[in-house]
Amino acid sequence: MTAPAVVLVRPQLAENIGAAARAMLNCGLTDLRLVRPRPAMPDPRALAAASGADALIENAKIFATAAEAIADLHYVYATTARPREQVKTVFTVREAARDMHDRAGKNEHSGILFGPERTGLENDEVSLADALLSVPLNPEFSSLNLAQAVLIAAYEWRQAGDATPGRVLAKGKAERATRDEVFDFFARLESELDACGFLRNEKMRPTMVRNIRSIFHRAEMMAHEVRTLHGIVTGLTMRPHAPRKRGDKSAPPRRVREE
Amino acid sequence: MTAPAVVLVRPQLAENIGAAARAMLNCGLTDLRLVRPRPAMPDPRALAAASGADALIENAKIFATAAEAIADLHYVYATTARPREQVKTVFTVREAARDMHDRAGKNEHSGILFGPERTGLENDEVSLADALLSVPLNPEFSSLNLAQAVLIAAYEWRQAGDATPGRVLAKGKAERATRDEVFDFFARLESELDACGFLRNEKMRPTMVRNIRSIFHRAEMMAHEVRTLHGIVTGLTMRPHAPRKRGDKSAPPRRVREE
Repeated sequence: MTAPAVVLVRPQLAENIGAAARAMLNCGLTDLRLVRPRPAMPDPRALAAASGADALIENAKIFATAAEAIADLHYVYATTARPREQVKTVFTVREAARDMHDRAGKNEHSGILFGPERTGLENDEVSLADALLSVPLNPEFSSLNLAQAVLIAAYEWRQAGDATPGRVLAKGKAERATRDEVFDFFARLESELDACGFLRNEKMRPTMVRNIRSIFHRAEMMAHEVRTLHGIVTGLTMRPHAPRKRGDKSAPPRRVREE
Repeated sequence: MTAPAVVLVRPQLAENIGAAARAMLNCGLTDLRLVRPRPAMPDPRALAAASGADALIENAKIFATAAEAIADLHYVYATTARPREQVKTVFTVREAARDMHDRAGKNEHSGILFGPERTGLENDEVSLADALLSVPLNPEFSSLNLAQAVLIAAYEWRQAGDATPGRVLAKGKAERATRDEVFDFFARLESELDACGFLRNEKMRPTMVRNIRSIFHRAEMMAHEVRTLHGIVTGLTMRPHAPRKRGDKSAPPRRVREE
């Protein structure tokens, strides 16, 4: 798997070079190439902004022209925020990331050209690339910082090869409660609610019981959480209550209920 | 459509607040909330880093606690780079963006909590949220800058509502060439190649012709490009050639061909 090269053409600010290196390494990219960078490299401000991705800055290859920087690549995307007078395929950054993975699987080495902070790539530099890469953004405020643009491209490359499930319940070593444990809690709770009179309306009782059960079903509880709820019922049915501790700033604001 | 709120909890650096505001507006988000920011707001460095997203900085709401900052929201994601000892749903940022759009469609207002630069959210702050939000990154270098994390969340929100086609040929007002125009060029080219002797090998001729045609078919040419190719053939068949202009730095390096 040949990961894409990131080519910064005439970057002006050392901080952006460093932040771009950090964003690349965040996403597993390491092939940083610089075309006539304004700061003398390795620049200490670039190293500071790289926040530990120093190796990318130290190993960055320096070139005199964009053409030389991409000479060994097979497919090149030119990032551009504005339309160019060139008949070229325009990829969204997401689709380009999929395309780069397809190419990497065929041993094609791809690269992405990023222009200078204020001006972007020159048209002649764009003409060296196979395709354009664009980031769909708010059309009324679409100017991305250079390092932010590198981050989005690198992030999309990373996601295109990532299999993290979109949504998962983080439960550590906890075990899900069985139906039996949940039903046992329902029986306990409903018995206590009968005893205190909360369920005294016979006509409403079946609906109320079903609604209360729904709350706890939606929580998809762990076994230890059901035990905690048993403890809560035990605590609440013991009288008198201890006074509530005050001054816990992390707690949600408590509204005093008037009855 | 209620766009999500971005809640920065105890942000330490004005530059990060500004860069986060810029990233938000890049992606069409405007509801910025700050919990006990270290810089006095609006901080001039934050405004400078916002690069035009000044209104977000000026209108940012300031709160004393995370609980107060999210009091009016219906669903809250807490960003976290490390596992927490809390049984909670963990969303990838991409899936969370889809989820936020689903909720917005049902008039649920969602928000994302981001912790301070070095320490992240406290566990008690995480306990105020419905779910966790994580960014799948290089596990060996996963620490994102605060503004970069805001950018990725805002970017994913934007993409989840974006219909830009992944790959499109930017051709401006140009018209695709008809088959007839392409065939006419093939006939012209092949006739000239016969005349100059390039296709003199009768046995190879059919294969060579098909291969040459394939190159031009893959280019999916415009009508004006076919006309340019006609001009190129005309130019190349005229002799003597004018000497090549030297010193064009934007051109790819030319290798002298030895024959």
